[in-house]
Amino acid sequence: MDDIRHGGDIYRHAVELDFSVNENPFGMPEGVRQALADAVAQCRHYPDPQAQELTEALARKYGIRRENLLFGNGASELFMAIVHALQPRRALLPVPSFAGYEHVLKAVRSEVRYYPLREETQFCLDAGILAELRSVELLFLAQPNNPVGNLMDRAFLEKLLDACMEKGIYVVLDECFLELCPEGEKASFVRDIERYPKLMVVRAFTKTYGIPGVRLGYLVCEKELLALVRRQLPEWNVSVPAQAAGMAALREDVYLTTCVAQLQMLRQTLCEQLRELGLTVYEGSGNFILCKSDLPLYEALLQRKILIRDCANYKGLERGYYRIAVRRPEENGRLLQAIRKIREEMGSAPTCQGENG
Amino acid sequence: MDDIRHGGDIYRHAVELDFSVNENPFGMPEGVRQALADAVAQCRHYPDPQAQELTEALARKYGIRRENLLFGNGASELFMAIVHALQPRRALLPVPSFAGYEHVLKAVRSEVRYYPLREETQFCLDAGILAELRSVELLFLAQPNNPVGNLMDRAFLEKLLDACMEKGIYVVLDECFLELCPEGEKASFVRDIERYPKLMVVRAFTKTYGIPGVRLGYLVCEKELLALVRRQLPEWNVSVPAQAAGMAALREDVYLTTCVAQLQMLRQTLCEQLRELGLTVYEGSGNFILCKSDLPLYEALLQRKILIRDCANYKGLERGYYRIAVRRPEENGRLLQAIRKIREEMGSAPTCQGENG
Repeated sequence: MDDIRHGGDIYRHAVELDFSVNENPFGMPEGVRQALADAVAQCRHYPDPQAQELTEALARKYGIRRENLLFGNGASELFMAIVHALQPRRALLPVPSFAGYEHVLKAVRSEVRYYPLREETQFCLDAGILAELRSVELLFLAQPNNPVGNLMDRAFLEKLLDACMEKGIYVVLDECFLELCPEGEKASFVRDIERYPKLMVVRAFTKTYGIPGVRLGYLVCEKELLALVRRQLPEWNVSVPAQAAGMAALREDVYLTTCVAQLQMLRQTLCEQLRELGLTVYEGSGNFILCKSDLPLYEALLQRKILIRDCANYKGLERGYYRIAVRRPEENGRLLQAIRKIREEMGSAPTCQGENG
Repeated sequence: MDDIRHGGDIYRHAVELDFSVNENPFGMPEGVRQALADAVAQCRHYPDPQAQELTEALARKYGIRRENLLFGNGASELFMAIVHALQPRRALLPVPSFAGYEHVLKAVRSEVRYYPLREETQFCLDAGILAELRSVELLFLAQPNNPVGNLMDRAFLEKLLDACMEKGIYVVLDECFLELCPEGEKASFVRDIERYPKLMVVRAFTKTYGIPGVRLGYLVCEKELLALVRRQLPEWNVSVPAQAAGMAALREDVYLTTCVAQLQMLRQTLCEQLRELGLTVYEGSGNFILCKSDLPLYEALLQRKILIRDCANYKGLERGYYRIAVRRPEENGRLLQAIRKIREEMGSAPTCQGENG
């Protein structure tokens, strides 16, 4: 962890508002909160190492088979187990993207090749990557990508996956934020693993249901491949609270639909307001926004106890890029107000307004 | 997990009394229960990836340095991370012992050599192991051993550790059950890592504080070695509930002392009563008992909804060995009553009384 700075370090900052992490801003639904409270007494038991009840419930929800489903102590545990299982000599990463992929690849000393996403095309993955598939064994993709928040076109992704399968390349498709995008279910590949036997779709309950403290992610892939990954996991890896929260979360379809609809509206409004304040805002979906500013926003906001994600340490980005989570209206208002004041104090003119039309 | 059967599978058995797992029978202390309840709301945040507060508190308790302390999602995660870090070609396991060591060694395809502990000497580790240290890179030891429950003599263990250090052999010393033994603190090696730079002491809150559902273990070792192990762990591996429970548990010294004293008396009584019922009972300490019987105790007790640990799948043991946790007086009474009835129904005479004096 030493070499990676993630969002959300509220433990070493005095923070009142945290825009640096991307979980559901409406928090955990009441049913999940109640399940966590009820689970306290059950912590006297070991968790079910097979997470049987949860596996059956989620398999039913997606209409997939239990043997294609594996739970982890957060998606991050599954990323680590995947590289431990596959030990790829060379892996390909479009950048900028989530630093966690590089974290796990370094653990197994993989050579990492980067495929740069370009600002001119709003950091969208393009067909140029097809020419980079030679002699790599594993490709990490995020849908939507992080920190950009943009979605790959489904037809393009199918073409890319076909090419990878043909060349025998494993693909990790990180859909951890997808359920918070309005396009979520349509864009997902959880039901497509029969067509792509080397595809590993990783998702999480963390962001969707506002419970990052509990740690609950899952992998969907072909069953022999799944057995290899499971072999690298410790026993009892998914805690009693996590399994209980997961069961309760699966009953929260209505809550989730409502959150996604509200998030979409809030995102649109926040993007417009950030642009009005002179920031460059990149295209995306879901619950976070990549933007650019010449103002030293990270430090200036932190002085006001507001934490955003400084993207300067993302490979493929430079200073001046920030990731901002979409939060509740009053919170977004406080953020905008603070940025407005910072602008006034620094006497800075809008820097990139031209680019934003 | 597929090839290992552990205790505690209450999820696929109808069980009223579980003697198959070894956690503190008096359950979680009230302070820990309250901390878990209070942590529910905090699950909206990511856990501190550095577990800073808990690390500082535990380092203070033991008078060790923070950089020698690493937390995991249960001891089992640390065992896995250790083998991922060290990738030992050959490892040595005294048997019978906890099956989890073999689980992790198989994950990295280590060759496993077994050192058989002999029934004649109450399954105590003996100096013969010193001759087996050639060309192994890692040795797993449990103090007390599981499923036997016996403690290695400290002077003997020091000699063994000296020999291992001299030969450059890493040693994992599993002290997960040690705090429940009256000899606990004296026998521990957590304060001896400066003398043994390749020693890795692994402990857990799970058994001691009755919270196996929460997952919280820790590793104490030299800091460069610790960094190698940390490198194999996923980010945010220790959940918010686990960190909160750990902090609260550290304030429960009095509770723990009381539990250990009661457990010792209960253990002694239960051993005597099992012997009176004709079982062979092996020497040990702490909160579980290895015994032997010609009666098909596992199946017969399960019919009465009582689960014990059938040790038939422990390498180094055979059919007829059982591990029984020491539980509260009324529970132990129900177990003894059930064994008495099984004996009567099966018309079996005491089988091994001679051996028990």
